[in-house]
Amino acid sequence: MSAEVIPLPKRGEGKEPSLAPILNLTATAMNSVNAIILDRMQSEIPLIPSLAGHLIAGGGKRMRPMLTLAGGELVGYNGTRHHKLSAAVEFIHTATLLHDDVVDGSEQRRGKSAANIVFGNPATVLVGDFLFARAFELMVEDGSLKVLKILSSASAIIAQGEVDQLTAQRKIETSEERYLHIIGAKTAALFAAASRIAAVVAECSDAEEKALDDYGRNLGIAFQLVDDAIDYDTGTADMGKDRGDDFREGKMTLPVILAYARGSEEERRFWQDAIAGFRTEDEDLAHAVELIRRHGAIEATRERARHFAQRACDALSIFPDGRARQAMVEAAQFAVSRGY
Amino acid sequence: MSAEVIPLPKRGEGKEPSLAPILNLTATAMNSVNAIILDRMQSEIPLIPSLAGHLIAGGGKRMRPMLTLAGGELVGYNGTRHHKLSAAVEFIHTATLLHDDVVDGSEQRRGKSAANIVFGNPATVLVGDFLFARAFELMVEDGSLKVLKILSSASAIIAQGEVDQLTAQRKIETSEERYLHIIGAKTAALFAAASRIAAVVAECSDAEEKALDDYGRNLGIAFQLVDDAIDYDTGTADMGKDRGDDFREGKMTLPVILAYARGSEEERRFWQDAIAGFRTEDEDLAHAVELIRRHGAIEATRERARHFAQRACDALSIFPDGRARQAMVEAAQFAVSRGY
Repeated sequence: MSAEVIPLPKRGEGKEPSLAPILNLTATAMNSVNAIILDRMQSEIPLIPSLAGHLIAGGGKRMRPMLTLAGGELVGYNGTRHHKLSAAVEFIHTATLLHDDVVDGSEQRRGKSAANIVFGNPATVLVGDFLFARAFELMVEDGSLKVLKILSSASAIIAQGEVDQLTAQRKIETSEERYLHIIGAKTAALFAAASRIAAVVAECSDAEEKALDDYGRNLGIAFQLVDDAIDYDTGTADMGKDRGDDFREGKMTLPVILAYARGSEEERRFWQDAIAGFRTEDEDLAHAVELIRRHGAIEATRERARHFAQRACDALSIFPDGRARQAMVEAAQFAVSRGY
Repeated sequence: MSAEVIPLPKRGEGKEPSLAPILNLTATAMNSVNAIILDRMQSEIPLIPSLAGHLIAGGGKRMRPMLTLAGGELVGYNGTRHHKLSAAVEFIHTATLLHDDVVDGSEQRRGKSAANIVFGNPATVLVGDFLFARAFELMVEDGSLKVLKILSSASAIIAQGEVDQLTAQRKIETSEERYLHIIGAKTAALFAAASRIAAVVAECSDAEEKALDDYGRNLGIAFQLVDDAIDYDTGTADMGKDRGDDFREGKMTLPVILAYARGSEEERRFWQDAIAGFRTEDEDLAHAVELIRRHGAIEATRERARHFAQRACDALSIFPDGRARQAMVEAAQFAVSRGY
């Protein structure tokens, strides 16, 4: 149980990492979570399950509830309390996606029309609110004030991260540090909380709770870094997100921050104009992608993602080796190998 | 302490009702609540207190926290737990106002530009989310699962009421029953919860808890009915809401439902066109106001408000007479006399 090194193989070393082990590990419990999700997104107002179902039934990897369930397996939890809490986590995530799509004016989500396009902004905002409230109802039913504290705090941090991202939008001077702070809040806080609550329901030690939090948080950062790399990596399969959205919205993600830092004077002028919103044509996006490639900014972003994925794996070293830990390590490897 | 009749004087009988007694009753505690509100709307992201402060500092009657505080006085509660919970209630309310303004595309709120106009829809949605999360953090700090249950359930009901209202928008066939159901959810649920939690922190009997819930719920319905009457009552002072907003948005409120039910064939055709969105000029609004007056729909709406205000007062009859009860009765009288 003492700390050991869990190496993260590089691409090409060994087999392609896959989500299959963690999916298998959590499959039975996930069926129960899905049943709770379907049951609790119902309402006497038919528009609510229609809109929520459009997004929830429309795929999605259920990454966050999967972390809660996998964490439960890792610590040998035999109960079912974490099923309801996993549904709560997915509701919080779904609420933020719905609001994000309104905020960004998204057209696509998970490979189909975003809810705001199909149902309009008003309904999308309000159904997000409903799911958020429902998430808290589920937590209250569970009855753990500690879980409530973790997830209410994460929710406040997510909202702050989203506002911070909005504030940094179209600001070319945004630093890598600020970017990491933003994704730590908007993405990693919920990954961390989702993992941590598994240790809470299983009444683990503080160290184990902290370890699961660290795993989730670092995985979340790795995950977002790769998402942001993929948005400029035209060689990869489409992830169901509009390619180039970040560029057109003037979002300051790491590939841009790095390409800007490494760019010539002329390139910097291009980035200033582009992020300010004066270069939004397809040819501008193509030029941006070319500059990002020229400066190795995709690979550098992925390399940082590997760093956080490694830290996620390291955090697991206090737990005994076994099926659950191996699945969670491979999930971290998968997170950084996506989109190649 | 046995049930007694608390009559609601008609207009012209006795002195003009005022909020002064309930304001005085709760003034000291409200200072503490306001300090908590100011403290807890802070964030490292400066846009959050700017936007939240635009609405929160911009007036507002603090009706809902006032109900919690007055309820505490009524039941002789000597603690301060309800201060934090009152702030939580006001944050939930503020979050719904911010989201409402985005949903309705409001231009004015409390007599000045709405937050969505000043700060844009994206920030307004996200700061609403932040305040909602912060409300739950405050409740978790208090630590009562019963309060968390009441306010998470109320939050889900509010969101459902808002979606229901959206669904009923531009539907001339909306019934009075459905309208009452909508305002019961979107407005009265939080009034009820705000009152009820005073009894919870004071560890009152179930009957007292229920009585405070009934008071708040009926007061909330009365309050919303009068708000909806005022929107068509051009003789009254401006309430800081755009006059005729409901009309232009095709919202089905009771004055319209009654004028439509009582109207001639020709008038009904006008209402069908207007609610469908084909008659939104100032002269159309003037005609709508004229039809509503002709059929006594403002007075009928106010009469129903009086009915609910009377029920609110009746609910208080199980509590001993005194300064708190008198102030709460007069607040109900005030609610229905507003805007004359």
